[in-house]
Amino acid sequence: VTSSPPPELRLDWLRQARTGLPEAILTAGKTPAQLRAIVAQAAQEQRSLLFTRVSFDDFTILESSAVKPQHVDDCRTSKTTMLWWGPPRAPEQDRGVVVVSAGSSDVPVAKEAVRTLHFDNCKCIELYDVGVAGLWRLLQHAETIQQASVVLCVAGMDAALPSVVGGIARGVVIAVPTSTGYGVAHGGETALHSALCACSSGVVVANIDNGYGAACAALRATRIR
Amino acid sequence: VTSSPPPELRLDWLRQARTGLPEAILTAGKTPAQLRAIVAQAAQEQRSLLFTRVSFDDFTILESSAVKPQHVDDCRTSKTTMLWWGPPRAPEQDRGVVVVSAGSSDVPVAKEAVRTLHFDNCKCIELYDVGVAGLWRLLQHAETIQQASVVLCVAGMDAALPSVVGGIARGVVIAVPTSTGYGVAHGGETALHSALCACSSGVVVANIDNGYGAACAALRATRIR
Amino acid sequence: VTSSPPPELRLDWLRQARTGLPEAILTAGKTPAQLRAIVAQAAQEQRSLLFTRVSFDDFTILESSAVKPQHVDDCRTSKTTMLWWGPPRAPEQDRGVVVVSAGSSDVPVAKEAVRTLHFDNCKCIELYDVGVAGLWRLLQHAETIQQASVVLCVAGMDAALPSVVGGIARGVVIAVPTSTGYGVAHGGETALHSALCACSSGVVVANIDNGYGAACAALRATRIR
Amino acid sequence: VTSSPPPELRLDWLRQARTGLPEAILTAGKTPAQLRAIVAQAAQEQRSLLFTRVSFDDFTILESSAVKPQHVDDCRTSKTTMLWWGPPRAPEQDRGVVVVSAGSSDVPVAKEAVRTLHFDNCKCIELYDVGVAGLWRLLQHAETIQQASVVLCVAGMDAALPSVVGGIARGVVIAVPTSTGYGVAHGGETALHSALCACSSGVVVANIDNGYGAACAALRATRIR
Amino acid sequence: VTSSPPPELRLDWLRQARTGLPEAILTAGKTPAQLRAIVAQAAQEQRSLLFTRVSFDDFTILESSAVKPQHVDDCRTSKTTMLWWGPPRAPEQDRGVVVVSAGSSDVPVAKEAVRTLHFDNCKCIELYDVGVAGLWRLLQHAETIQQASVVLCVAGMDAALPSVVGGIARGVVIAVPTSTGYGVAHGGETALHSALCACSSGVVVANIDNGYGAACAALRATRIR
Amino acid sequence: VTSSPPPELRLDWLRQARTGLPEAILTAGKTPAQLRAIVAQAAQEQRSLLFTRVSFDDFTILESSAVKPQHVDDCRTSKTTMLWWGPPRAPEQDRGVVVVSAGSSDVPVAKEAVRTLHFDNCKCIELYDVGVAGLWRLLQHAETIQQASVVLCVAGMDAALPSVVGGIARGVVIAVPTSTGYGVAHGGETALHSALCACSSGVVVANIDNGYGAACAALRATRIR
Amino acid sequence: VTSSPPPELRLDWLRQARTGLPEAILTAGKTPAQLRAIVAQAAQEQRSLLFTRVSFDDFTILESSAVKPQHVDDCRTSKTTMLWWGPPRAPEQDRGVVVVSAGSSDVPVAKEAVRTLHFDNCKCIELYDVGVAGLWRLLQHAETIQQASVVLCVAGMDAALPSVVGGIARGVVIAVPTSTGYGVAHGGETALHSALCACSSGVVVANIDNGYGAACAALRATRIR
Amino acid sequence: VTSSPPPELRLDWLRQARTGLPEAILTAGKTPAQLRAIVAQAAQEQRSLLFTRVSFDDFTILESSAVKPQHVDDCRTSKTTMLWWGPPRAPEQDRGVVVVSAGSSDVPVAKEAVRTLHFDNCKCIELYDVGVAGLWRLLQHAETIQQASVVLCVAGMDAALPSVVGGIARGVVIAVPTSTGYGVAHGGETALHSALCACSSGVVVANIDNGYGAACAALRATRIR
Repeated sequence: VTSSPPPELRLDWLRQARTGLPEAILTAGKTPAQLRAIVAQAAQEQRSLLFTRVSFDDFTILESSAVKPQHVDDCRTSKTTMLWWGPPRAPEQDRGVVVVSAGSSDVPVAKEAVRTLHFDNCKCIELYDVGVAGLWRLLQHAETIQQASVVLCVAGMDAALPSVVGGIARGVVIAVPTSTGYGVAHGGETALHSALCACSSGVVVANIDNGYGAACAALRATRIR
Repeated sequence: VTSSPPPELRLDWLRQARTGLPEAILTAGKTPAQLRAIVAQAAQEQRSLLFTRVSFDDFTILESSAVKPQHVDDCRTSKTTMLWWGPPRAPEQDRGVVVVSAGSSDVPVAKEAVRTLHFDNCKCIELYDVGVAGLWRLLQHAETIQQASVVLCVAGMDAALPSVVGGIARGVVIAVPTSTGYGVAHGGETALHSALCACSSGVVVANIDNGYGAACAALRATRIR
Repeated sequence: VTSSPPPELRLDWLRQARTGLPEAILTAGKTPAQLRAIVAQAAQEQRSLLFTRVSFDDFTILESSAVKPQHVDDCRTSKTTMLWWGPPRAPEQDRGVVVVSAGSSDVPVAKEAVRTLHFDNCKCIELYDVGVAGLWRLLQHAETIQQASVVLCVAGMDAALPSVVGGIARGVVIAVPTSTGYGVAHGGETALHSALCACSSGVVVANIDNGYGAACAALRATRIR
Repeated sequence: VTSSPPPELRLDWLRQARTGLPEAILTAGKTPAQLRAIVAQAAQEQRSLLFTRVSFDDFTILESSAVKPQHVDDCRTSKTTMLWWGPPRAPEQDRGVVVVSAGSSDVPVAKEAVRTLHFDNCKCIELYDVGVAGLWRLLQHAETIQQASVVLCVAGMDAALPSVVGGIARGVVIAVPTSTGYGVAHGGETALHSALCACSSGVVVANIDNGYGAACAALRATRIR
Repeated sequence: VTSSPPPELRLDWLRQARTGLPEAILTAGKTPAQLRAIVAQAAQEQRSLLFTRVSFDDFTILESSAVKPQHVDDCRTSKTTMLWWGPPRAPEQDRGVVVVSAGSSDVPVAKEAVRTLHFDNCKCIELYDVGVAGLWRLLQHAETIQQASVVLCVAGMDAALPSVVGGIARGVVIAVPTSTGYGVAHGGETALHSALCACSSGVVVANIDNGYGAACAALRATRIR
Repeated sequence: VTSSPPPELRLDWLRQARTGLPEAILTAGKTPAQLRAIVAQAAQEQRSLLFTRVSFDDFTILESSAVKPQHVDDCRTSKTTMLWWGPPRAPEQDRGVVVVSAGSSDVPVAKEAVRTLHFDNCKCIELYDVGVAGLWRLLQHAETIQQASVVLCVAGMDAALPSVVGGIARGVVIAVPTSTGYGVAHGGETALHSALCACSSGVVVANIDNGYGAACAALRATRIR
Repeated sequence: VTSSPPPELRLDWLRQARTGLPEAILTAGKTPAQLRAIVAQAAQEQRSLLFTRVSFDDFTILESSAVKPQHVDDCRTSKTTMLWWGPPRAPEQDRGVVVVSAGSSDVPVAKEAVRTLHFDNCKCIELYDVGVAGLWRLLQHAETIQQASVVLCVAGMDAALPSVVGGIARGVVIAVPTSTGYGVAHGGETALHSALCACSSGVVVANIDNGYGAACAALRATRIR
Repeated sequence: VTSSPPPELRLDWLRQARTGLPEAILTAGKTPAQLRAIVAQAAQEQRSLLFTRVSFDDFTILESSAVKPQHVDDCRTSKTTMLWWGPPRAPEQDRGVVVVSAGSSDVPVAKEAVRTLHFDNCKCIELYDVGVAGLWRLLQHAETIQQASVVLCVAGMDAALPSVVGGIARGVVIAVPTSTGYGVAHGGETALHSALCACSSGVVVANIDNGYGAACAALRATRIR
C-alpha cells in the first residue's frame, strides 16, 4: 500500500498582498500531510497564518509541527488557532468595530471573528448574550452600537438581532448567522434567511458560522478610512 | 358536454357545536357551483358563515347568491367576507386580545384575524406598523402588550416581532407569519421558521398568512376563562 | 495553549419576572465551563433552573457541580433535568392541561413538556400511545380532551393527531411535532408541516421536539384565567 | 416563419395490451397540433382515449377535432375528458373500489380517479367531504371502508385521512395527496409526505393530484382476483 | 437520580385484528425498558412480533429478554428480526408476489420486505441485482414479472426500475425507494420522487427504505382474492 | 417620465472565437430595447445569432427589427429562433450526434438542442417518444444509440431514459432534464437529480430544459476528433 | 360593500434620522389607498421618498397622486422611482463606489442600486456585462475595482463574479444575487448560495434582487470615512 | 441466530463489454460478505476491478481477501483503490485530458477521477489549487486548458471555476462539484447548482464528489476520436 504525496501547495500569498486580508486555512477536511506542508511553507516564508475550525486532533498535529500555536477557543467541537513567527502581540488599533452576539451558544463563532480581527491588529468591543428576547440587555449598549463603524451581529435561531441592531446603527451591519438551535433552525438556514430579510435597510450577511469571513468584511470596511 | 353536479355538501355544523369555533369556508379553489350550494345550505339553516380568501370574482358570485355579504378587505388579491342572516353587529366582548403587525403589507392578514374575532363577537386592539426596525413604535405600546391575554403577531420577512413581543408579553403569543417580501423571504417560509425558533419561550405559530386560524386559536384561549 | 474564559453570563432573570415563565437552559452546545458558571450563578441567587437536552456527559457535569439534580428521562439520547434549591415538590395546581402523544417514540418530548409544567407547579393528565391508526385508543378519552383548557399534542411522522384532537377539543390545541420516523419524516419537518395545515381550525404549533416551548405556551394560556 | 411539423407519434398501444391499463394523454404541455394528431391516430385505430388535465382551451380543440368528448369536470382550472368511438356506457363491474376524499377542494382529483375507473368499466362508491376534523362523517362509513378491496384516499393539506382509513380498511389503501391549501401545504408536498409517513401500515401513495395514476393502481389491484 | 418508568404500553392488537396486518415494532428510538416491556406483553399474550431496524445493541437486548429471535439480516447498520412463540416455520402460500431490487446495496431493504411477507406465511420470488443499466438482467425475467400479482421494486439513486417494471407488469407495482447512493441521491429523496413520477401508469410508492410497509401493502393486495 | 437607455452592450465575440461555440442570446428577461440593440450590433458585424426562449411578443420584436428570423418551434410558451445574414442553409456535417427524447412534451427542449446543432452545421438523428415505459420503442434503435459519438437524452419526470441509454451507448451521454410533469416532478428537479444519479457510469447532465447548453457540450465533444 | 380605510401610517422618519439611510417604500403588495396615503404624508412633511419595485399600474397611481416622479427603469416587470419635492438633482459626491454586473438581465437590479446611491447624492461607476465567462471584459477594469471603497457585484445564475472580484478588490465587496436564469438557478437561490460561499474572503451578501439594500449597505460603509 | 448468505452476484461484465467502461464497485454500503464475494468472482474471471469510496475498515477486508490492492488516497474518510491480477502498470495513452481543482480539499475527488483514468490506461495533466480567487494561478495554464480535449473541473463551495474554464476551453468541460465547505455550501449542492448554471456555454456536470463518473464521461468523450 503506497500513500501518494499531497499535490504541490499554492498558498495565495499574492492575493493576500493584493487584497490585504490575512491568509487563513480552513483546517476541516485537510489531511495531516496537507496541514504539515502548509505549516512548513509558512515557516519557510516567515509568515503568520490563521487556522480556522481546527479539530482537537488537528490541533495536536499543528502543535507538534509548528512554532507554538496560540489562542484556543473554549468550544466543544472546534478551535480557532493562529501560528506566529515571533512573540504574541495584542491588537492595538481601534477601528470602531463592535461584535455582538445573541446567545451563549453563538460565542464560538463570535470568537472566530474576534480572533481574525486581532490577527489583523484590530481591536473590538465584545457584547455577548444580548438577544432581543430581553431587550434591556441590548438597549443599554445602544449608543456604542450607534456610533460603531462596523457591527458584527452573531445570531442563530430566528436571528432577530440584526433587524434591531440595523435600526439603531449608522455603520456597516454584518450579520453572521449561526448553526445554533434545533428543529426548524435548520443548522443556521433560518438565521441566514432571517438576516437576509432583515427589515432594517442595508444589513449584509456572511455564510453560516463564518466568523472569519465576516471579520474580513469588517477589515475591508474599516480600511476605507 | 355534460357538467356533473357538485357532490353532496357536508358542512360540519356538528364540529362547530363541539368546538365552539365559527365555521369558515376557504373560498379559493371552490367552484361557483360549490359556493352557491354552500350559501344555500347556510341560508336554509339560518347560520352565519365566514368566507376567507375570496377573490374578486368569487365575491361577485357570493353577492349575487346571498344575503348581502359584509366586510371587504382593502386588499389587492383577496377579500375576507362574512354572510349574515340578520342585521350586522359590532363586536361587544373585551377578552384581552391584541393584534400587532410589522409592516403595512401584513395588514390584510391581520385584518383576516380581526374579522374572525369580530365574527365571534370578540373585540380586539389593533396595532399596525410596529416592526422592530423602529423599536420606539412597539415600545410605546409595551404595557398594552404585557397585559394582553392573547397577542397575535402578524409579521413577514424575518419575523423578528414575535421574539420581541414574546419577551414582553405574559399572555399567549401567536405568531402569524406572512408571505410578504421577496427573495429568501420564500413566500413566508422564512418568517414561519423564524417564528418557530423565536428566542422567547412559549411562542406558538399558525400557518403562513393564516389569520383565520390564529384568530380561532385566540378564541380557544380566551374561552378558558 | 491557553483556554480563554467564557464571557460574562447574562441570565435573563428580568424576563422571567416580566413574562412569568420558568428560565430554562438549552444545554446542548454549551461548554462545561459555561454550564458550571450557570449553575454557580443560579446557586448564588437561590433560583431553580430547568435544563433541557442534557446529554449524559452534561448530566455528569451538572451532578458534580450542583445540588442534586432531579428528574432524569428514560430517553436514549438526552435527559431533561431540573435543579432545585430546597426539597423536591410535586405539582399541585390543576389548570386543565392534557398531554397526549401518538407513539412510544414521542414520549421523551412529551415528558419534556410534562416536566416543564411540573416545574411551574402545574399538574397535567398524560395520555400516551393514542395515535389515530387505532382510533379507539383516542376516542375513549374524548371527554377528557373536549373539556381540557389546553391540549398538548405530541406527534411525529404524519402528525394526524392534532387534526383529530382539534376536531374534538374546545380549548387551546398546541401541536408539538417530533423528529420520530425516517425517510420523508424528514426529522420532524413533515409532522410540523402537517400540524400547521391541520384541517381543524385554531391548532397552533411549536418547533420540532420543543416540549419545553409548548409547555411554556400552555402556561401562558392557563394564566389567563 | 415556418412552423415545423410535430414529430411522428408513437402512442404505446403495445404497452396497453401488455399491462391492460387504459392509455391516457396528459394534455397539459402539448401543442394543438400534437393533440389533433393524437385524436386522429386514435380515430384511425378506433380506440378510446382518456385525456387528463384538459384546459378550457384544449377542450375546445378536442371538441372540434373529435367525435364528441364526454365527461367534463366541474373544476376551475382543468377538465378530465374521454373520447369514445361508439355510444357512451355506464360502468358495470363492481370490483370493490371506494373513493374517499377529505374536503370539497379535493373533489376534482377524486373525480379524475372516478372517471378513470369508469373508463375501465369499473364502478366505485364515492364518499366526499369526510375529513378527520369531523370524525363522525367518516366513521358512519366504517363498514364500507373496511370491506373494500381498494380504497383511494384523496386528501390535501395534512392528509390525516389515509392514517385513519388505513387503520380501518383491510384492502389496499392508496393515498392521493392533493395540492389543496396554502402556506406550508406546499402545493401538496406536505400531504404527500404525510401520507408516506402514515402511521397505519401498508398505505401506498401516488403523485400529487394524480387521480389517474391512483385509479390505474386500483385497476391493477382489482385485476388480481 | 431516578429513572421514571416507561408509560403504559398500548400495543394495538385490535387494529391487527381489524386490518389483518402483522404487528411490527419499529425498534429504532425505543429505550431498552420499552423493548423489554413490549416483549413481555407479547409473551404474555402468546403473540408473534416483527421487529424492524434492530440495531446490534437492541438485538442483544431482545435476545436476552425473549424467546430466541430469528432471522438476522446480513446488513451493516440494522437487522430485521422476529420473535416467535413456537417452532420456526417456512412460508407456505404462493400469492404471486415478486420482489426485485436494483443494486446490491438495496438488498437489506428488499430483505425487510421478504421477512415481512414470510411472517404472514407468504412466499415470494426474489430477483436481485437487476438494475436497468444492464437491461438483459431484468428482461430475462420479463415473464415472471408480467404474471405476478404484486411486484415490489426496491431501488435507490435514480430508481429507474419501477418505470421499466411498470411497463411490463400487469399486477400491482409498489416502488420502495432506498437511501442508497450519495450526493443528489439525497438519502433516497431522488429515488422517491423518481418513483412517484414513474412514466408507467399505476405505480404506487412506499416511504424510503420502508420494506415493511411495502410488504404490508402487498399483503393487503393479495388478500383481495 | 424618462426611460433611461440600456447600458452599452458587450457581446462576447472574443469568447466565441476562443471556444468556438455559437453565441446565443437568452431572450427571456431582456427588454425590447436590449433586444433591438443586440440585433443591431449583430447586423453591423454581419454575424449570425441564436435566440433562445423567445416569447411570442419577443418574436414580434425580433421580426420587426431584423433580417427575417428563421425556425420557429411549434411550442406553447416559447420559440427558439435564429437570425441569419445570408441565405438559410441546411446542416451538412455528420458528427455522430443522436437526440432522443422520452415524451412528446419533451420535444420543444429537444428541438432547442437540434436547432443549436444545426446552427453549427451539425446534423443529428432525432428519436422522439422513446420513453422506457415501452422499452420496445427504444430498443429498436439500440444499434444507432450504441454507435453514436454523442447521445443527448431529453427526459422529464423520472428521467429513467439516461440510465437505460447509458447502459447501451459507448459515446458521450448528456442528459437534459426537462420541466415536464407535475407534483413531485418539481419543475424538472426530479429529472435532474435522477439523471445525476443515473446508475450507468459516465452520464453527464445539463441544466433543466437547457437544450442549447447540451448541444454546445455535444459540439465541444465532436470537435475532439 | 364597504371598503375599510387603511390603518394609520407610521413612516419611520425617526429611523431615517437615526441611521441616516433613505426611507424607501417597497411598493409591491401595497394597495392603491396605502400608496396614496404614503405620498400624501411625504408631501405634507416635504420629504423625498424612494419607491422600489413599482409595477406599471402602481406607477400610474403614483404619477396621478404626486409631484412628478422621476427615473423609470427600462425594465419589463417593475420600475424603481423616486418622488422629489423640489428640482431634480444629479449626484455629486464621489465616495469610491463601483457597481459591476454580470449579464444584461442583471441590469435592472444594478440600476435599483444606482438609483438608491444617487438618491443619497452618491456617484458611482457602472460596469455592466462583465461576467467571468469572458474574463477580458472584467480584467480591463481591474485597477478600478482594486481601488474602489465599495464594489457592488450584481450577478445571477452561478454568481461567479463575486469570487473573482473579491480576489481583486481591497474594499468592501457586496454581492447582490439576482433571480436571472432558469432551472436550477432557482430564482436566485443558487446565485445567493454561491455568493455566500465565495472562495474570496470577506464577501458579504444582500437578499436576492435587493439592489436597494445593497446600496444602503454601501452608504453605511462609505459614511465611515 | 442465523446470518443469511448474500444473494447471488450479478457483476455486469456484459455492460462493460458493451459500453467499454471500467467496472467499478461502490464499496460504501456493502457488507464484508458482499465485498469478499465480489473479489472472489473477479479473481475467478481474472478481471481487474476499481473500488471507490473504500473506508479504512473495508480496505482491510479487501487487503486480506485479495491480491494486493493498489493506490490508496491520502484522504481522511475514504480511499479509492484498485485490484489487479498481474503487475501494476503506468498509464500510457495521452488523450488530452486535464484535471483541474479549486482547493486542496477538492483533491481527493480529483484523485478519484485521476485513478479511474489511469485504470483505463489514460494519462492526464493534474492542476491543483487553481481556484478563481487567485486568477493568476489558473491563467498561467490557460493554453493547456484551451487545447485540452476534456477538462475535468473539480470544485466545491461556489464552484466558480467551471464558468471561467468554460470561457477558455474549446474541449469538453465536465464539472465535478464537491462537498467541500460548510453552511450554505450544502454538502455540494451549491457547487452543483452553480456548475449547472455556469455562464459559459456547454459545461456539463456530474454528481457531487463523483470523480469516478466524471472520469468515465471523459473516457467516453476521448474514445470518439
